[in-house]
Amino acid sequence: MKPSLYTILLAGTCLIFSCQPTPQPITEQKEIKDPLPSWNEGSNKTAIIDFVNVVTDDQNPEYVKPLDRIAVFDNDGTLWSEQPAYFQLFFAIDRIKAMASDHPEWNEQQPFKAVLEGDMKALVASGERGLIELVMTSHAGMTTDEFEQIVTDWIATAKHPRFDKPYNQLVYQPMLELLDYLRANEFKTFIVSGGGIEFMRPWAEAVYGIPKDQIVGSSIKTKFEIKEGVPQITRLPELDFIDDKEGKPVGIWKFIGRRPIFCGGNSDGDLQMMQYTASGKYKSMMLYVHHTDSVREWAYDRQSHIGQFDKGLDEAKANGWNLVNMKDDWNKVYPFD
Amino acid sequence: MKPSLYTILLAGTCLIFSCQPTPQPITEQKEIKDPLPSWNEGSNKTAIIDFVNVVTDDQNPEYVKPLDRIAVFDNDGTLWSEQPAYFQLFFAIDRIKAMASDHPEWNEQQPFKAVLEGDMKALVASGERGLIELVMTSHAGMTTDEFEQIVTDWIATAKHPRFDKPYNQLVYQPMLELLDYLRANEFKTFIVSGGGIEFMRPWAEAVYGIPKDQIVGSSIKTKFEIKEGVPQITRLPELDFIDDKEGKPVGIWKFIGRRPIFCGGNSDGDLQMMQYTASGKYKSMMLYVHHTDSVREWAYDRQSHIGQFDKGLDEAKANGWNLVNMKDDWNKVYPFD
Repeated sequence: MKPSLYTILLAGTCLIFSCQPTPQPITEQKEIKDPLPSWNEGSNKTAIIDFVNVVTDDQNPEYVKPLDRIAVFDNDGTLWSEQPAYFQLFFAIDRIKAMASDHPEWNEQQPFKAVLEGDMKALVASGERGLIELVMTSHAGMTTDEFEQIVTDWIATAKHPRFDKPYNQLVYQPMLELLDYLRANEFKTFIVSGGGIEFMRPWAEAVYGIPKDQIVGSSIKTKFEIKEGVPQITRLPELDFIDDKEGKPVGIWKFIGRRPIFCGGNSDGDLQMMQYTASGKYKSMMLYVHHTDSVREWAYDRQSHIGQFDKGLDEAKANGWNLVNMKDDWNKVYPFD
Repeated sequence: MKPSLYTILLAGTCLIFSCQPTPQPITEQKEIKDPLPSWNEGSNKTAIIDFVNVVTDDQNPEYVKPLDRIAVFDNDGTLWSEQPAYFQLFFAIDRIKAMASDHPEWNEQQPFKAVLEGDMKALVASGERGLIELVMTSHAGMTTDEFEQIVTDWIATAKHPRFDKPYNQLVYQPMLELLDYLRANEFKTFIVSGGGIEFMRPWAEAVYGIPKDQIVGSSIKTKFEIKEGVPQITRLPELDFIDDKEGKPVGIWKFIGRRPIFCGGNSDGDLQMMQYTASGKYKSMMLYVHHTDSVREWAYDRQSHIGQFDKGLDEAKANGWNLVNMKDDWNKVYPFD
């Protein structure tokens, strides 16, 4: 499988929001909470709740025991935004700028020259090879501990160009509620992203409530070595695993070892894990987030260079998978809305 | 890193035994349970309990919050036996025998001829190349679902040559108690084994109480494909990752994303993950199982071809790591003892 731009370039910190209980009349003894308050009433919200009720009801023939309640979610465009470019690309660019003072030769050398001059056209013209070089230079050559600190510092300080907020505040409130709701019903939630594992882990655990070992993504190779008496893992400039398209079911099997029963995604890169989820022996739910909100977020699908949603859209319609219309289904997009 | 025999050939189903409470006088109101009843009183048992008490006491300066309580365990020789050969080798041999009727050419072709004739000397003479061929032939070429069923059937029917019991009954009762004890104290327990991930997962979850996604091991490559309309993952005859020696810390970082604070092992293949665990920022415990019981189990260390324990033994002594003397520290080896 050939790595595409999508698979190499991806990238957030935020607050975990718990469900807000709907106020109940005092005479009502039993407290009824809406587990998905940012979801408008409609077929998608009903389908999610019905699905969870069925698979958790041990009297129902479609009951699924907790160990098999595996839910997988793409990250970019599914749990947080991915426009105007994958956030991991902004990270790579900022990293190159931060490193530039030690590399005067970059002023004349592509793709670094393009990055330093803010020339996105020249950056794109450097092609896949240029972008791989960019990512390897910005993501490799240090220990894993050092890289974790670099990502942690960046996510705490960098701001999204449109919203002027830290990237990890651009997560979808309805999806945070969905993650909480599934976990409250003994689902084990995983991220299965084309983005870099080590780019996500430093912040995603706190934002999504998903432990580091349940975050699967693309990776570069690493090497264990003892440097001046100190055991270290060093990041090498070599691709290890591309967790996108056909790679997603492979990553699921390798890291999780079970076929999921719930799959959330937003692009053609998620199609294969949708197909894989749909073909298991248990009742399953495939949920595609469709970016239809040009005002609060962005609207894009079949023609987009980022998060292209074309074949996936056709299959979702043909198979009756749940297609979330962001504009109509969500009464809130970001926690800060 | 060159794959060694150790790294390619490894292999178990059993009952999970919960801790037996020590009988208490009726006048004693507070029930005091011994969490490690199969461990004799002594410095190792005391060290385990002291370690757990310290890192779980939020008033202690060495307190470690639950998310960072990562415990990793080797499998062969640490959680179950590995003599007279790695159990996964017995599986591979049985598999070749089961496949032989479709392969008459194997009667004249090494290493298959050696396996079919029970000629271990000739099998060893076929070298690493022969053994890799044996493993690839027995472990690849089918879907992951099919392989899972093959392993499940084998573990339910095959018997260990010395004990005449299913291999997964040859697990160490004291280690089962240790796993339970750590989990009861909010440790997350992982297996990090040189053995094959997909050889362990079908049975290890039930035996050790460790979920499939917390089982890390060596792997071969797989491929997602849609065969006659059915999405499948097929196992390919190509090594993907060797989770042994320097590979163990690499596997820990890739699959878990945190440095462990507790590491259990038994051989030189576990040394690097011991070093890695020992060099973290939190208080940590390194526990080596030393095979010293030639009567109830086996006695071997520096000279053994399986589970060689030489450099690791030196480092354990030099660094004051805990060295479990199986003969003296364990009042029970197997659950059936």
